[in-house]
Amino acid sequence: MADGNDLVLERTLDAPIDLVWEAYTNPQHLKRWFAPRPYEITECELDLTPGGIFRIRMVGPDNFDTGHGVPGCVLEVADREKLVWTSALGPGYRPNEMGEGCESFAFTAVVTFADAGNGKTAYKAVALHKNAADRDTHANMGFEQGWGTVAGQLEEFAQALKVNA
Amino acid sequence: MADGNDLVLERTLDAPIDLVWEAYTNPQHLKRWFAPRPYEITECELDLTPGGIFRIRMVGPDNFDTGHGVPGCVLEVADREKLVWTSALGPGYRPNEMGEGCESFAFTAVVTFADAGNGKTAYKAVALHKNAADRDTHANMGFEQGWGTVAGQLEEFAQALKVNA
Repeated sequence: MADGNDLVLERTLDAPIDLVWEAYTNPQHLKRWFAPRPYEITECELDLTPGGIFRIRMVGPDNFDTGHGVPGCVLEVADREKLVWTSALGPGYRPNEMGEGCESFAFTAVVTFADAGNGKTAYKAVALHKNAADRDTHANMGFEQGWGTVAGQLEEFAQALKVNA
Repeated sequence: MADGNDLVLERTLDAPIDLVWEAYTNPQHLKRWFAPRPYEITECELDLTPGGIFRIRMVGPDNFDTGHGVPGCVLEVADREKLVWTSALGPGYRPNEMGEGCESFAFTAVVTFADAGNGKTAYKAVALHKNAADRDTHANMGFEQGWGTVAGQLEEFAQALKVNA
């Protein structure tokens, strides 16, 4: 699947896979960690069904708005294994109008989870683009740092879920 | 699901649902009826799995080539009920580069089948577009006539499968 138009982020998270999955797939949880701080998610909808909505609205410092939260589409859900969604389609698989800024190009996210033993989780996020230009736009927006920061926040949030469980 | 940006074709086909489904989902069969004659399909790939390829190359009279057969993506498969694919994504859900001519805009096809009794099949194809401009482009390319002709060819082909069964 991976090719030269992809961006890839891999981390071993120090949290058990059940909690990582829970943190990732419950929109109330996702809202808390999915934006790299100091960005914040102000709106989040996630319907874990193929064809379901995945929409977030992210706001930065000084209310810098990263876009209007164009609704994306969930494509595949495999419990505690895989989540795939795309911004190329909206809910019900309708092709999307591209937005502005962070929403000016389409990408598909293929996120996979695996039990890494000792209560850790192997986490991998791959962003698929249609060409090298979109990949570079995404890279220059700070994919590596942004998604890396967010992986750390996911780990931290999942750990807190454990304490609260 | 249906909204003003859709184009819809509905027919009751005089052929049983098992054969209509077989004609629709076997790429060797599909090749025989999916292009409105005198157009012909010269290449056809269909992998009936979410994320699988759906690609056809269609050639018209005097070798008029309708495009290079940009690979689309299968999204949902429900046996003898529903098939969804999109040209907005390619295999593995990667966003597609749009092509030229008939491939210059993205659409998602939601095709449903139901047993209509007496060996007939209710067939419905909905093409979802991102906006009214794409819908109109598709309509002006002859959606109604093209998909209508093809529904007749599907019926005829499925009837022949019955005779040969």
